Amino acid sequence: MTGPATPREPWSLRELHRDLRDGRTTPADALARSRAAVSDTEPEVRAWVAHAPESEPRDTGPLGGVPLGVKDIIDVAGFPTKCGTSLREDAAPANRDAAIVTSWRRAGAIPVGKTVTTEFAYFSPGPTRNPRDPGRTPGGSSSGSAAAVASGHVPLALGTQTAGSVTRPASFCGVASLVMTHDRIAMDGTAGLSPSLDSHGVYAAGVTDLALAWSAFTGEVDAGATAPRPPRLLLWTAKPLGVVEDGMREAIDGTARRLAEAGAVVDAFPEEDLVAEAVAAQKVVMAYEAARERAAELAVASCISEQLATLLRSGDAMPDTEYDAARDRLAEIGAALTRLSESYDAIVGPAAPGPAPMGLSATGDPVLSRPWQALGLPVVTVPGAADAAGLPLGVQLVGRARDEQSLLAAGCWAERAVSGQV
Amino acid sequence: MTGPATPREPWSLRELHRDLRDGRTTPADALARSRAAVSDTEPEVRAWVAHAPESEPRDTGPLGGVPLGVKDIIDVAGFPTKCGTSLREDAAPANRDAAIVTSWRRAGAIPVGKTVTTEFAYFSPGPTRNPRDPGRTPGGSSSGSAAAVASGHVPLALGTQTAGSVTRPASFCGVASLVMTHDRIAMDGTAGLSPSLDSHGVYAAGVTDLALAWSAFTGEVDAGATAPRPPRLLLWTAKPLGVVEDGMREAIDGTARRLAEAGAVVDAFPEEDLVAEAVAAQKVVMAYEAARERAAELAVASCISEQLATLLRSGDAMPDTEYDAARDRLAEIGAALTRLSESYDAIVGPAAPGPAPMGLSATGDPVLSRPWQALGLPVVTVPGAADAAGLPLGVQLVGRARDEQSLLAAGCWAERAVSGQV
Repeated sequence: MTGPATPREPWSLRELHRDLRDGRTTPADALARSRAAVSDTEPEVRAWVAHAPESEPRDTGPLGGVPLGVKDIIDVAGFPTKCGTSLREDAAPANRDAAIVTSWRRAGAIPVGKTVTTEFAYFSPGPTRNPRDPGRTPGGSSSGSAAAVASGHVPLALGTQTAGSVTRPASFCGVASLVMTHDRIAMDGTAGLSPSLDSHGVYAAGVTDLALAWSAFTGEVDAGATAPRPPRLLLWTAKPLGVVEDGMREAIDGTARRLAEAGAVVDAFPEEDLVAEAVAAQKVVMAYEAARERAAELAVASCISEQLATLLRSGDAMPDTEYDAARDRLAEIGAALTRLSESYDAIVGPAAPGPAPMGLSATGDPVLSRPWQALGLPVVTVPGAADAAGLPLGVQLVGRARDEQSLLAAGCWAERAVSGQV
Repeated sequence: MTGPATPREPWSLRELHRDLRDGRTTPADALARSRAAVSDTEPEVRAWVAHAPESEPRDTGPLGGVPLGVKDIIDVAGFPTKCGTSLREDAAPANRDAAIVTSWRRAGAIPVGKTVTTEFAYFSPGPTRNPRDPGRTPGGSSSGSAAAVASGHVPLALGTQTAGSVTRPASFCGVASLVMTHDRIAMDGTAGLSPSLDSHGVYAAGVTDLALAWSAFTGEVDAGATAPRPPRLLLWTAKPLGVVEDGMREAIDGTARRLAEAGAVVDAFPEEDLVAEAVAAQKVVMAYEAARERAAELAVASCISEQLATLLRSGDAMPDTEYDAARDRLAEIGAALTRLSESYDAIVGPAAPGPAPMGLSATGDPVLSRPWQALGLPVVTVPGAADAAGLPLGVQLVGRARDEQSLLAAGCWAERAVSGQV
């Protein structure tokens, strides 16, 4: 029997899955636990736009009975999709699931509600607080999903990333995340910002939980249940970007040391400047595409935040040639990175500049995710590190396109190594 | 005043646009003409799932008052999205427009209904007949949109392409089409088959009409209203694919001759075998991704066609490594083609193996579109050629990624050259 909700502790998908499979708990119990956890800490965390678990959960598929949170730019039948904007205040309930929700439902997960997103998944924050320190931002734009998983409201929650919208909230809230390869899953039913950048993502308590979820999602073997070989890693410091704080630098150095001691190959990433170039190109692409994607919203600029309006105006004024040059350059950088990381399993580096910043009026800096997102690569965030004050710090592993499986295996190994289990 | 509907004649967007702008016609008149044209030939053509123009059309935006047909895998608020499958027979009306519809509506176009699609945009046909010969297929999967434009029901209609779903119906029905660069416009609200291949497309009577539409859609200058320089073209024969019929080969040879006489550079495409390789890779990618995208449908295989079930089963059984190798190879082929076509405006070649095949039980072969779709490139189909029996034959121009504007300029020039206007 799974115990009662433990506030502020992430809910292990792996344990829930085992308990459901062994009959020690039921889908109805799991939903009851989700309800209890939400009612316990939601007034403080404010992760949800709507939390309404169905009364008779299905119990089919490998994740049968697992409560799932869904970022509120993704359609779930029966819930309106409000996208964190007053423009969608009166949206009618969606009458169809988004493609990504169909896939997770097929794996057995049960959408229990919609989680807070920043306005159209850009910067303007919703009411969500960081469960690890309610005076701090949970990050964005997938604020509610990260906070809901960090609070143990659900063991699994969906996000999306255009710049750093999945990885940074994972780092700030101390949970694990996977950003899927670009174009891995259709965007039907998911409101995007930038068609060539938007990707789907998912949160869980740890990387081994994500590996289990991925196994259920794809039918591949569970990378968290095997003992993979120590990975070959490239250590990316992000130094030329000039944003990484001391605490994070120490955490990355310490992590790299522990991984190497545990048997991983950790070589220096040789092309830091190339990554800085990709950051610049990502900003160009995002502004240009968002201006077209959200042209209708720019036309009613008084109804959107000044931050979003500024992005859309800058993209609207951008010459096609600037956008095109950025896309061309990203293709070259992608090809170069593919070549230089060919014999490595992942690039390892800081998931965010530092711990979650104080205050709720901003969601932190996505800069350390921009380059990988611009290249469409999958990314796993490994939780477990912390600064001197005990605030969580995430480590990101960047994988090869379309190889989430190997990336998750490397992530599971790294997670165990960091916690002294290998 | 625009005259009454002329059955079986495409409706010139450029003329309608001029008449609307000059006050010679009104949006209400345009919708009335659409209604009349549909009531005249729809019993024979069967292009529409639903045709229900609104009673008080808006008249804002550069295309204010232009009736638009929308393929029935794309959401239009107020209409159910049935995807050509009995699985969606009882679908509720969509309560939101797809992203692509929002963009066209913003340009002023007025969705007047939903056009027939093959089952989930794969091969199993709907009831649509080819307006140029009702005993022949209109092609697929965007069958209704191509047929509606060829019949003069609307001057503009939307399609999507994963293999050859826009280009081949344009060729078979004798209309112009544009397939946009992959990831140009978000897929929110568009039911796809293959996330890394699906693209949006649009039909009109001629390429100059498409250029006007593109100008309204993007705000760029109207490539059809200027006199562009003669383009530099690479002539792709598709010989190694062994599918091009004699009539089409003669049409392409004749077109190439006329283009060269009119001043275009027409050089031989040097990498025919590379294109054949891209065809094979496209098939791998499509099967693998469709199996994941339509897993829910495969689970109820008795409710889908044997053709779709066969595709999904083959993709389901495919090893990840095969898919990954195909994607990697396509990236290499794309880079090689970019290099070799750097100093050209477009690749020109046959849009389909020959005229529309007899019969309504199959939609023809998309093979001549597969390679370009696999590379995510924009494609314009130029109408105007015909076989000895007078059946339409399309010529396709393949452009550079993200440069629909130059491609349309080349297409307008080619269209004029083919009809003796330059």
